[in-house]
Amino acid sequence: MSTFEKLSINTATIKRASLTEALDLSVAAGLSHIGLWRDKVAEVGLDTAVELVKASGLRVSSLCRGGFLTAANEAGQAAALEDNKAAILEAKALGTTEVIMVVGGLPDFSVAPGAVDAGGGAPAVAGGKDLVLARRRVADRLAELVPFALEHGVRLVLEALHPMYAADRAVLSTLGQALDLAAPHPAGAVGVVVDTFHVWWDPSLREQIARAGAEGRIATYQVCDFNLPIAADALLSRGFMGDGVIDFASIGAWVAGAGYDGPVEVEIFNEEIWNRPCADVIDTVKQRYAELVAPHLG
Amino acid sequence: MSTFEKLSINTATIKRASLTEALDLSVAAGLSHIGLWRDKVAEVGLDTAVELVKASGLRVSSLCRGGFLTAANEAGQAAALEDNKAAILEAKALGTTEVIMVVGGLPDFSVAPGAVDAGGGAPAVAGGKDLVLARRRVADRLAELVPFALEHGVRLVLEALHPMYAADRAVLSTLGQALDLAAPHPAGAVGVVVDTFHVWWDPSLREQIARAGAEGRIATYQVCDFNLPIAADALLSRGFMGDGVIDFASIGAWVAGAGYDGPVEVEIFNEEIWNRPCADVIDTVKQRYAELVAPHLG
Repeated sequence: MSTFEKLSINTATIKRASLTEALDLSVAAGLSHIGLWRDKVAEVGLDTAVELVKASGLRVSSLCRGGFLTAANEAGQAAALEDNKAAILEAKALGTTEVIMVVGGLPDFSVAPGAVDAGGGAPAVAGGKDLVLARRRVADRLAELVPFALEHGVRLVLEALHPMYAADRAVLSTLGQALDLAAPHPAGAVGVVVDTFHVWWDPSLREQIARAGAEGRIATYQVCDFNLPIAADALLSRGFMGDGVIDFASIGAWVAGAGYDGPVEVEIFNEEIWNRPCADVIDTVKQRYAELVAPHLG
Repeated sequence: MSTFEKLSINTATIKRASLTEALDLSVAAGLSHIGLWRDKVAEVGLDTAVELVKASGLRVSSLCRGGFLTAANEAGQAAALEDNKAAILEAKALGTTEVIMVVGGLPDFSVAPGAVDAGGGAPAVAGGKDLVLARRRVADRLAELVPFALEHGVRLVLEALHPMYAADRAVLSTLGQALDLAAPHPAGAVGVVVDTFHVWWDPSLREQIARAGAEGRIATYQVCDFNLPIAADALLSRGFMGDGVIDFASIGAWVAGAGYDGPVEVEIFNEEIWNRPCADVIDTVKQRYAELVAPHLG
């Protein structure tokens, strides 16, 4: 098996590339998978995207992103359900079973869904800082989406985001919390992602990765580093593996030990990396992956 | 009882003030307590600091900070024990039982102990990114310090820091983890602080605050807000209560419900606030405290 058999470049890492370019670059790099964001699909339209992916021979490891389930009003909740159903159908058409869900922030502070670095915010609402309530809404919306996901054979993949994004991007902050949210639903309907950037600090990480594996819920393993100092725009503090603080040996061993042997996505938001030629970025990703990630995946 | 009976201004909030000025400002504001950082004590020397505090009539709610226990080598470990013993003796002399402990980051990335915004870092060491190992070292050093703390009637107060500081300031990231670390030791020797900035996002916060209260370990309640967007220097994203995302009503009710009725410290690191006249800062703190914090403390 090739060192890069499992490696998948997420289009967010090479944000300036079109879908066609991202597919071509991945094929040229000898990869078998690609991770897609919906903005790249929308740029060409779903039908064309499906054709392009098919022609590339690549498998889609996951589709980013659904979610944003914390709206406090009915209109916002209805819009979220509609958008997530669309994401499920797009995933099915693109041949992936995994839709990554960023669940949204507090109603008063949540950014809008959409592109990687979309900003937003909303007018203050009653209880707009109530985190317990916002988390309950996520559970409610998830339950409403599960039947549709099951019907289409697509999994809603809950992504715990680093707690520094708890107010504006995801009130889902730990892998354990994601598994608690998933618990009422079948593993084929609700999964979780282990993204090193978001979860590396968690004192219960080893235990929760083992739990996620035992429950059959690990949908994908995403890797990138946590850079220090934190970037001025905290969203963009993700880095190449090896440039930051994360111990990929330990986390990789835990993920492999939990039985996960699927694709490994590299998803980096970093202004400096976005400004480099995409082929160079993929070269560096491959080198770091081979050195720091692959050896620990068993 | 006055609205401000429990309010304590931490000297980090009015960083430009000398110890004398900080004491005078607190007295003029009608407060009964003050939270001290060791740098302010060191500026005048311990004996003078003790006299000044005594003359002010204020009680010292806590002394910041001991900790930095993650050194990987013997010299670093010995230095940490010595520094923490000094902090314990300073606390005793100043009439407080509570020494706040910031436990330190990964050996490769930890800042130096000292002033609020001290930077540092150290040469890379073998296993310098191993978080599990760094956390084990904290437990080991803590066990070595407990007898000295008990002997002097001073409590080592573990501060969970926001996970965005897990690599460079504190490998202690949640209140639950702090209570697990404290568990082998008497409640009179090892306590915890509930600092809203660091813990507001935690899905298990309510449960862990209740546990901390039941175990008699809540040493102090520190309040400030979590500002968005996160400041370019992430350390300085603390704000006046009401300026950020935190739900002080819920957290305050949990802390009061856990039986804590001691001082409430306001500790804000924020360049813009540091540049304002200290008396104005204290006025704003009092106003926000009266409006957003005090009503929920029972």
